[in-house]
Amino acid sequence: MITTLSLLFSRPSSVSIPGKINGVVKCVASPSAEKTAYKTKVSRNENLAKLQAGYLFPEPRIGDTTEPIPEVITSAMSKRSYALSTVDGYSGYGAEQGEKVSNDLHSFLVWSYSLSPPYPISVLSSRLVCLFAPHVEQLRAAIASTYYADLGIEEDDIFVSDGAKSDISRLQVLFGSNVTMAVQDPSYPAYVDSSVILGQTGQFQKDVEKYGNIEYMRCTPENGFFPDLSTVRRTDIIFFCSPNNPTGYAASREQLTRLVQFAKENGSIIVYDSAYAMYVSDDSPRSIFEIPGAKEVALEVSSFSKYAGFTGVRLGWTAIPKDLLYSDGFPLAKDFNRIVCTCFNGASNIAQAGGLACVSAEGIKAMHEVVGFYKENTAIIVDTFESLGFKVYGGKNAPYVWVHFPGRSSWDVFSEILEKTHVVTTPGSGFGPGGEGFVRVSAFGHRENVLEACRRFKQLYK
Amino acid sequence: MITTLSLLFSRPSSVSIPGKINGVVKCVASPSAEKTAYKTKVSRNENLAKLQAGYLFPEPRIGDTTEPIPEVITSAMSKRSYALSTVDGYSGYGAEQGEKVSNDLHSFLVWSYSLSPPYPISVLSSRLVCLFAPHVEQLRAAIASTYYADLGIEEDDIFVSDGAKSDISRLQVLFGSNVTMAVQDPSYPAYVDSSVILGQTGQFQKDVEKYGNIEYMRCTPENGFFPDLSTVRRTDIIFFCSPNNPTGYAASREQLTRLVQFAKENGSIIVYDSAYAMYVSDDSPRSIFEIPGAKEVALEVSSFSKYAGFTGVRLGWTAIPKDLLYSDGFPLAKDFNRIVCTCFNGASNIAQAGGLACVSAEGIKAMHEVVGFYKENTAIIVDTFESLGFKVYGGKNAPYVWVHFPGRSSWDVFSEILEKTHVVTTPGSGFGPGGEGFVRVSAFGHRENVLEACRRFKQLYK
Repeated sequence: MITTLSLLFSRPSSVSIPGKINGVVKCVASPSAEKTAYKTKVSRNENLAKLQAGYLFPEPRIGDTTEPIPEVITSAMSKRSYALSTVDGYSGYGAEQGEKVSNDLHSFLVWSYSLSPPYPISVLSSRLVCLFAPHVEQLRAAIASTYYADLGIEEDDIFVSDGAKSDISRLQVLFGSNVTMAVQDPSYPAYVDSSVILGQTGQFQKDVEKYGNIEYMRCTPENGFFPDLSTVRRTDIIFFCSPNNPTGYAASREQLTRLVQFAKENGSIIVYDSAYAMYVSDDSPRSIFEIPGAKEVALEVSSFSKYAGFTGVRLGWTAIPKDLLYSDGFPLAKDFNRIVCTCFNGASNIAQAGGLACVSAEGIKAMHEVVGFYKENTAIIVDTFESLGFKVYGGKNAPYVWVHFPGRSSWDVFSEILEKTHVVTTPGSGFGPGGEGFVRVSAFGHRENVLEACRRFKQLYK
Repeated sequence: MITTLSLLFSRPSSVSIPGKINGVVKCVASPSAEKTAYKTKVSRNENLAKLQAGYLFPEPRIGDTTEPIPEVITSAMSKRSYALSTVDGYSGYGAEQGEKVSNDLHSFLVWSYSLSPPYPISVLSSRLVCLFAPHVEQLRAAIASTYYADLGIEEDDIFVSDGAKSDISRLQVLFGSNVTMAVQDPSYPAYVDSSVILGQTGQFQKDVEKYGNIEYMRCTPENGFFPDLSTVRRTDIIFFCSPNNPTGYAASREQLTRLVQFAKENGSIIVYDSAYAMYVSDDSPRSIFEIPGAKEVALEVSSFSKYAGFTGVRLGWTAIPKDLLYSDGFPLAKDFNRIVCTCFNGASNIAQAGGLACVSAEGIKAMHEVVGFYKENTAIIVDTFESLGFKVYGGKNAPYVWVHFPGRSSWDVFSEILEKTHVVTTPGSGFGPGGEGFVRVSAFGHRENVLEACRRFKQLYK
C-alpha cells in the first residue's frame, strides 16, 4: 500500500508503453540465446532453476514504508557523513569505532607479545579475527540494552547487519544445504526462496504449490494463525515470523512457549523474525527471548526498516545467544561470526550512526510516533473492510491487514482491486499456498492515500 | 599500514590488559560447552569446519583507507540523509528512484491489464520482479558510462552492491557447490574462504597449505606474477584480481588476452576483481572488458572503497554482460538478478547518493587526488625498501608493496617488524602458500605515519 500511495492515480486516458518499461521488461524476457552464441561450459546452478517465476510480486516494494525518517535520526546520519570528510571523523572498515579498535589491536598485540614470544601465530591470528569483527561495539551494546535488557542477550551476541533479508540469506549460507526447514504458511517469501537457492529443498510441486522437503506449517483462521504443532514434522530449522507478514498475527506468550518446547524436544533451531515487534499492542512477546529456554534453541533476526523507515537506509541485526549449540556442542554464533567476517563487511557506518540515534531516548520516542501513525492507518483499513462485511485478520499487532475472500482466487481479487480501484494490494497466495483466498493490505502509506484507497474499496464492495 | 597509523606508538611502559581486550578475546576462545549444556540436534555445517583458524589476520582492517572522503562526496550523502526527513525526499526500498519506480509500476500494470486480462499471472509476476530489481537506475547508468564507456557494458549490466566482498559471496551462492574454482596464489583470502563455505572444496591439506579441489595459480617473481596457464587445470570459475592484492601487480593487456583465451578454450567463467583499477599508472587494462571477447567469459566486481575511502560507507558494483551464458545458454545475469532480489535489498540509499557524487566530474577529480596521495605513499615505501637492498614488487599500479624476504617465514618477518618497530605489516603466507617469504606493506596511511614507519624500517634493516 505504500506503493498504493503512488499508484493512487486514476487510469491515464492514454496509456503509453514507455521505452523505460520496455527496457525493463527486456531484461526479464528470457534473452533467447542465439544459436551461434558462445556458451561457457559451466552448468547453471540447479537450485536456481528450481525457483518459480516468483519472488512473485514486488514484495519488498509493496511492503515499503512511506513516512519521512524523524529528524533526530537523519541529522545524526548527516553529521556522520560530513564527519567522514575530516581527519578526526573519518573511519574506514568497522566504522564508528575505527580508532578504538586500532587502539585495542595495539594493546592486544603488545600484550600478547609481552607474554611469551614467539606467541603461537595460530592463536594470535584467530584472536585478531574476532578483535576485528566488523561490528560496531557501540551500536551492538545499544541494541542489546534497548531490546534485550533483562533477557540475557549481551552486546557480543548482537550482529549488526544491512537488514533482515541479507541476514536471512547469510543464515542459510551458515546452515548449508544439508538441513531441513519448516516455515509458516503463509510467510515472507525470502525464507523459502533462500532455502531453495541453498539447495535445501526438492523441486517445486505444482499440484500442491510447495517445494519438496520443506515443512509448510499451515496458519489459518481455524487454528488462530498458529500451526498445529502436533502435525508438524521435525526439521532442523524453523523459520517463525511474529508479528507475521502477511497475516499480521502475533503469537501469544503461551503459543511461543509451546513453539520453544517443540523445538527443544526436536532439537531444532528457531530463526525468529521480529521485524515488526514494535507494532505489538497487546502483551504478546516482542522477542522470542522472553520465553524461558529460548536461548538454547532460537536466534532472532530484526531490523530498523519498519520502525524508523530504514527500508532504503539498510540497517538491522541478528541476535545469537551463546547457549545456542550445534549437536556437537559447537556454538552457532562462532560460525556466524566467521560468515560475517568472510561474506560481509558490516553495515554502512552512516546507517549505523542512524541506528545509534534510533535507540537514543529521543529516537525511540520518534520511532514510536512513526509506528503509531502506521497503526492508525491499520485501524482505518480494518474498519473499512469490516464495515463492508469482510472477515479481517491481523492489523492489531502489525502494519498488515489480512482480508478474507473465501472461495476466491487471491490473484483474481488482486486483479479486481487493481483494475477497478487502481490500488495495489498483495495476493495472499504469493506468500504460500496457505495464503489462497486472502489479500494483504499494507498500512504503509500517506494518510490521504490510505483514506482515498479506503473510499475506493467502499465503492467497489458496497 | 592504515592500521600502521594508529599503531605507530612507542611501546607503552606499562602494558595493561584491559577488560575490553579480555572481553573480545573471550568471544574467540572456543566457549567450551559444559557437559550439561543443551545441544540442538542440528549438525554443524561441515564446510565451516573446514575453514582454518584464519581469515587469518585482520585483513580488511590492514587494507583499510585512512584519508578523509572528499567533501563533494560527503556533502551529497549528508544532503541525502537530511532529505530522508522530508516528504519529497524520502525513499524506502530501491532508493533514489523510489517514486520513479512506482510510476513505472503503475504504467506497467495498467499497460499489462489493458492488453488482455486476465494477463497470465506468471508472466506478470516475473516481469514485476525485474521491474523492481533493487538497483538504482541512476547510479547504474552513471557507473556504466564512467567505467565502461565504449566497452559495451550497459546500465542494466551493472548491479550496485554494498561492496566487493559481499558480492563475491553472493556470486559463490550463485555458482553453488558443484563448481570448481581457480585462484591466484597469493590472493585476497575471501575468494578461497567463500568457496570453502559454499562447499566447493575439499579439506585443508596442511602439508601444502591448500584446500583440496581448488586450483592455486602460482604468481611469483619468476613468472612476472602472472600464472603459467599451460600448467593450470581447467576449472569452472577463475578468480582473478588485477591490480592484485597482495602482490600489487597489474596484468598487461597481452596477459589478460591470454587469460580470456584460456577461459574461452576451457569454457570457464572469470570473476575479475578490479577494485584497484584506478591505481593503474601504465597502460594495463582497467577493466577485463577492454579485452575483446571478455564479455562472453567474464564478469567484473569492483568497489568505491579504495577510490573514495568508502571502506566504511560500503558501496561497490558487479558488471555482468548479457553475453555471459551457462552451458545451457541461460544468461548468468538473470540468475544473479534473482540472487540479488532474494538475498539482498540494495546498498544504502545514502551510500548510493555518495556514489553518484563519486562519478560526477568533480568527484572523479577528487578521487584521483585521493588515489594520487596513496600512490605517493607507495613510492616512499618502495624507495625505502629498495634503498635497504630489498627486492620490491608491486606498488606501481597498486597501493600495495610486496617485499621479498627470500628464505624467511613471512610470519617471522611480520613478527620481527611488529616487535621492533611496532608497525603492522601483513605476512604474505596469509594470502596463500605462494605468499611465503613476502610481506605486504600497505600504502594506506597518513603521510606522517608512513614516513615514520619508513624511518623505523631503515633503523631495523640498515
